[in-house]
Amino acid sequence: MKSNLAERAGQSLAAVRKQRALVHNITNYVVMDFSANALLAIGASPVMAHAAEEVQEMVALAGALVINIGTLSSPWIEAMFVAGREAKVRGVPIVLDPVGAGATRMRTETALKLIEEVKPSVVRGNASEILSLARAGGETRGVDSTRGVDEAQATAMQLASAWGTCVAVTGAEDFITDGKRCFMVGNGDVLMGRVTGTGCVATALTGAVLAVEKDAAVAAANALVIYGVAGELAAADRPRPGTFRTRLIDALDEITPEMVVSRAKVRES
Amino acid sequence: MKSNLAERAGQSLAAVRKQRALVHNITNYVVMDFSANALLAIGASPVMAHAAEEVQEMVALAGALVINIGTLSSPWIEAMFVAGREAKVRGVPIVLDPVGAGATRMRTETALKLIEEVKPSVVRGNASEILSLARAGGETRGVDSTRGVDEAQATAMQLASAWGTCVAVTGAEDFITDGKRCFMVGNGDVLMGRVTGTGCVATALTGAVLAVEKDAAVAAANALVIYGVAGELAAADRPRPGTFRTRLIDALDEITPEMVVSRAKVRES
Amino acid sequence: MKSNLAERAGQSLAAVRKQRALVHNITNYVVMDFSANALLAIGASPVMAHAAEEVQEMVALAGALVINIGTLSSPWIEAMFVAGREAKVRGVPIVLDPVGAGATRMRTETALKLIEEVKPSVVRGNASEILSLARAGGETRGVDSTRGVDEAQATAMQLASAWGTCVAVTGAEDFITDGKRCFMVGNGDVLMGRVTGTGCVATALTGAVLAVEKDAAVAAANALVIYGVAGELAAADRPRPGTFRTRLIDALDEITPEMVVSRAKVRES
Repeated sequence: MKSNLAERAGQSLAAVRKQRALVHNITNYVVMDFSANALLAIGASPVMAHAAEEVQEMVALAGALVINIGTLSSPWIEAMFVAGREAKVRGVPIVLDPVGAGATRMRTETALKLIEEVKPSVVRGNASEILSLARAGGETRGVDSTRGVDEAQATAMQLASAWGTCVAVTGAEDFITDGKRCFMVGNGDVLMGRVTGTGCVATALTGAVLAVEKDAAVAAANALVIYGVAGELAAADRPRPGTFRTRLIDALDEITPEMVVSRAKVRES
Repeated sequence: MKSNLAERAGQSLAAVRKQRALVHNITNYVVMDFSANALLAIGASPVMAHAAEEVQEMVALAGALVINIGTLSSPWIEAMFVAGREAKVRGVPIVLDPVGAGATRMRTETALKLIEEVKPSVVRGNASEILSLARAGGETRGVDSTRGVDEAQATAMQLASAWGTCVAVTGAEDFITDGKRCFMVGNGDVLMGRVTGTGCVATALTGAVLAVEKDAAVAAANALVIYGVAGELAAADRPRPGTFRTRLIDALDEITPEMVVSRAKVRES
Repeated sequence: MKSNLAERAGQSLAAVRKQRALVHNITNYVVMDFSANALLAIGASPVMAHAAEEVQEMVALAGALVINIGTLSSPWIEAMFVAGREAKVRGVPIVLDPVGAGATRMRTETALKLIEEVKPSVVRGNASEILSLARAGGETRGVDSTRGVDEAQATAMQLASAWGTCVAVTGAEDFITDGKRCFMVGNGDVLMGRVTGTGCVATALTGAVLAVEKDAAVAAANALVIYGVAGELAAADRPRPGTFRTRLIDALDEITPEMVVSRAKVRES
């Protein structure tokens, strides 16, 4: 499967650039600039809008909706549901980033309610966030007894089946599943963990690819391949994190479908 | 006229640096950091304040008020009107950026109401935003039939006359009019379109120049000349967008009145 | 005392890196990205959360709470008090940045009420902000008659005694006092004044050190030494401000306890 998946990742990048899909972000304050510049660099068109009064109109123009709960408050939660429902009605794919799920009830509950009510195509988080959602939702067995990558993967498969969504767990190796198929992405660099918002940018880029690739699990895998290859390019001479952040935007602009295909480390497992 | 206009742009830069005018920004979340750093680099003093309870006091200290509707919500709209009215009473010049006008009713209507009620000295947008305001306000004839630069310029002149403001339409060539005079600015670089918030920064810098130049059309033209020359300096060796964004701030710090005068591409048409 | 203080600054950096303390920030929109990246670079774990509904849970997980009033609004003020009271109950140290105190009543009063009610371990501001708080709180004699560094230092000592907190006045030379002891920090670079949010980052880093050093005055001094040395590293070849900002993050990652000890300019006066 590898070469086929690698090809599809390259095709997704080309399609994002060609269609310049509008990606509507309801995201946290910390990463707005970084997400918008990453989306622009990859070739998408970012827009940020969070007022309940306007999100229906905005999402109607969008190719995908990104919901990120990193800096929640009640008015924003309301807008996330309004936008999410409208996206659902219109068939606009949604990606949810449950930032900090497990840290507070507000985050955990908001993420679970969004998953239930607006059925995102993809939920992307780190292992801790995904495991927290599983515990809170009662979807796992024995989560507290063991930890780590294997557990997160088994849990992600359960969640994907229970929720009817795709779940992407990012980490040293990314794991993407729709409950049946599982994809592993080995691209990326440890430097990505040294910059704030790199996970949120992964989610935003997943939104961009969802706008052009209907198979959500493949879209999530493709986005993480593209982003991971860009991370590798940016990390090539081991810059420190300030410089790396700048180069990551540069790399998202520089990356070509051919680079993606040749450097992709993706497999179905 | 060119050399005189170029000279005035250089004088504006020198005046901004000398007076270090406080520029009060009620702007969108995405560009706050970028706008503040651009204003600091050019020599102005940025401040951000958006609470209805404090904007009257803040604008009373300011040399100009920047209102940008890029991430609207009801409390922010209220503060924009409170600040705008106080600015009007105190003679503090206002520049309005109607980000996303045309995309949602909330944005279009807020922009039009602000224009009507607080009479900004300058409204700066791209052609799409300016045309949207014209359509929504019923100020144009035949807007839907033709598109492009000529139409945007004719529309801008109508709007400027109807509103009693100056209108600046930025693009490959910038067009500034107060309804009678028209200025064209040819400075800038296509890379500016590859970074989020470069339009918003143009508006913020227009605020800085409005604080030192009373002729609003000349102030807008001067700001766009200064910014365009900085963009050319930053783009000199064709960096990618992450690096370009950093260099644009560097260039706003590096640029001198002499560079502005010698590189200005500005004419009255 | 110098060598002992320099050693303690180096130890604080090592302890921040070792403990990776969670620093809960309720800070202004402009500096969220910069603060989070600075905290990550120094080795701490930043989190931003501002909803009154979740700040109690979040601060319970934190090693320190940073409250920064740079872009206030009523809901955020409420959350600052909720989080601050919970931090007090739990013994989580608080650092307050009274950004813009003196510019508006809302800022001055919020800062003074926070100081009274949540008793921050450290209040860090520039001379103007600290003097404004002194005037508004009636804590100074003759503030209006003279100005400058000496006055700010005398005022800071009075305030620290009156408030029962530590006060850090940053400037060309930083002055830190708990009302009895006074520390002077000579590290830093004028370029830090050319980038938005460098003061706010000083406050955030003070939070990181407060999580590992119980003596608040020493913690504030250590944070300002570490940050000042990083600023010197970043400024080494006199970059312009856009590049300097990137390098400052790089330097916070690069800096070692040994560099801190060898370059520290800190004395008790």
